[in-house]
Amino acid sequence: MRLSGRREPANDPYDGPMRVAVVGATGAVGRTILSLLDERAFPLDDLLLFASSRSEGKRIGFRGEDLTVRAVHDRWFEGVDLALTSAGSVVAKQFLPPAAAAGTVSVDNSSAFRMDPGVPLVVPEINPEALRHHTGIVANGNCTAIIALMPLGPLHKRFGLSFLITSSYQSVSGSGMKGVRELAEQVEKLHDQVESLTRPDQHALPVGEVFGRTIAFNVIPHAETFDSAGSGSTTEELKMGNEVRKVLGIPDLPVSATAVRVPVVAGHGVSIYARFEKRVTPEAARETLAEAAGIRVVDEPRRDLYPTPLESAGIDDVLVGRVRQPGGDGHALLLFAAGDNLRKGAALNAVQIAELIGREGLLRSR
Amino acid sequence: MRLSGRREPANDPYDGPMRVAVVGATGAVGRTILSLLDERAFPLDDLLLFASSRSEGKRIGFRGEDLTVRAVHDRWFEGVDLALTSAGSVVAKQFLPPAAAAGTVSVDNSSAFRMDPGVPLVVPEINPEALRHHTGIVANGNCTAIIALMPLGPLHKRFGLSFLITSSYQSVSGSGMKGVRELAEQVEKLHDQVESLTRPDQHALPVGEVFGRTIAFNVIPHAETFDSAGSGSTTEELKMGNEVRKVLGIPDLPVSATAVRVPVVAGHGVSIYARFEKRVTPEAARETLAEAAGIRVVDEPRRDLYPTPLESAGIDDVLVGRVRQPGGDGHALLLFAAGDNLRKGAALNAVQIAELIGREGLLRSR
Repeated sequence: MRLSGRREPANDPYDGPMRVAVVGATGAVGRTILSLLDERAFPLDDLLLFASSRSEGKRIGFRGEDLTVRAVHDRWFEGVDLALTSAGSVVAKQFLPPAAAAGTVSVDNSSAFRMDPGVPLVVPEINPEALRHHTGIVANGNCTAIIALMPLGPLHKRFGLSFLITSSYQSVSGSGMKGVRELAEQVEKLHDQVESLTRPDQHALPVGEVFGRTIAFNVIPHAETFDSAGSGSTTEELKMGNEVRKVLGIPDLPVSATAVRVPVVAGHGVSIYARFEKRVTPEAARETLAEAAGIRVVDEPRRDLYPTPLESAGIDDVLVGRVRQPGGDGHALLLFAAGDNLRKGAALNAVQIAELIGREGLLRSR
Repeated sequence: MRLSGRREPANDPYDGPMRVAVVGATGAVGRTILSLLDERAFPLDDLLLFASSRSEGKRIGFRGEDLTVRAVHDRWFEGVDLALTSAGSVVAKQFLPPAAAAGTVSVDNSSAFRMDPGVPLVVPEINPEALRHHTGIVANGNCTAIIALMPLGPLHKRFGLSFLITSSYQSVSGSGMKGVRELAEQVEKLHDQVESLTRPDQHALPVGEVFGRTIAFNVIPHAETFDSAGSGSTTEELKMGNEVRKVLGIPDLPVSATAVRVPVVAGHGVSIYARFEKRVTPEAARETLAEAAGIRVVDEPRRDLYPTPLESAGIDDVLVGRVRQPGGDGHALLLFAAGDNLRKGAALNAVQIAELIGREGLLRSR
């Protein structure tokens, strides 16, 4: 469908029509991508929406038009210059390589290609240069890794990151809308007996399929699946290490991550302990963070100002605060970051990559 | 009031009547202390209940009797052998030293005396020997510190703790029943609009007095107050370092703590990174933890078994799991602990100290 509202940025080297597809358009991330394409006046002429066959025929409004969702199929990429894909690893592995071979550039939100040495993993504020070498697939990072990377990127550039420990506070929308619905259902069952949960009847607690135990009024130190190699870590935890190492270009960086699901709807928090090669102070760190793009420093303890996930929901910036130095170690910092996992942790980062691809003339079909 | 139901343990060296007072009897911890005194058949003959003047005259049932709450006053300790006090630092500082001078032994749940070099800070499973040198006041630890200490104590004994980083997931009952009520009120306001919180109307979010911002569907990296010395840490975070150092007897242990409030009613979680002087493996750590008193190892990732705070609520044991080793460091461990902050984190630990005082003949009035 041909759409109006195309933006013409002054420095846009690309001036042909841009045909864009969103794959996984009905999911939590896909819907956020659509909002952002509109909000940010993304320069597209055609927009195609794909999802699983379950959603085929659904209609989604975009810039005043009513678009029909199609089931993704073998030749989905025909006529598509750029795709924003968020349909899981299995779909990505099946449908993206043929698209790349045909000249479509896909920005993929799944973990399928992130660790592929031939696929750039990009956070535009941190390693935009990695995009130059793409061959049709660009990986978007894990939500928590992106949110942690936003402060770690500029701090690494100035002080040289040498050691990292993270503990996360990840919202249920990281598991998609089904995660949000499961929390909502459990809250609905328990909301009028909150005080009794000081001594819960363990057998009466609601348990759902997404989280495997009660997520309402609980936290669960388990996100995604446990590593099949038996490290004891979850795949979510391994992604933090792998992706931070790849984006920052520090292949031997020691990273210990603990990923914990919390009963928050949107917004991931990360508690970060980081050591650096150079000496660092909280003041120098705050100064560096204040100058960095995509970050808002919220760090005034005396006015009770610090980041919280709920306050990061719906905005673009990653909030960073609680910047401290552990006693006696002039090379270490503690900080707390919070960002919208559906926006900067997923959809926004993907759209920013897409914008960069357009701006830098990195589409392959011309 | 004289009470029936006194237990007579075989090895109890003390055989006179035990007159016990609970100060702060109407609070979340005080009520849990009363439950535990009953559940554990604590050997008491008289029980006096004290609280602030606001609660004067309230009646609380105990072992079939109806006890009247009195306002704490200058001579409250007269006739009291042992007091379990949980009424905050200000009350403790005013009312405990005169009681100690008169021969009453107080087990105090506030932070008032914890760092006093003359006051033992005791976790009975870890440093019961510290109790011998008490002079009328024994300090009960901070809730999160006790829960972290339960696995760290036995691990330290075998492997020698040398470095510690914690990030906590602390329930609202850590702020007392007023914290629980504030969460309940906010959940009541938001429970039928959970899905809309993927993009919340920031101006419409409920904010309460206890937490200063929305705690429902959020996490808040702020517990207690910010350190007046300007370290950037909260007093809650400093307690973790100070109390772990004191209980384990490692005065120079580097500790970095981040304390985060989560919308859980009872049960605190702690994500722990610990380094040891000796080499350690997850297997050796699990073996050590399995033999330790007061701990239940819940660590079978393949069966999705790991600790969660909600599952630790209402039970005595601290749950420990997610035991892992960071890649490439044979001296480090990651683990996740969850324990009931009102029980082992407060009331249970206090009652256990009181039991030890009775058992070891450490009352001062005889």
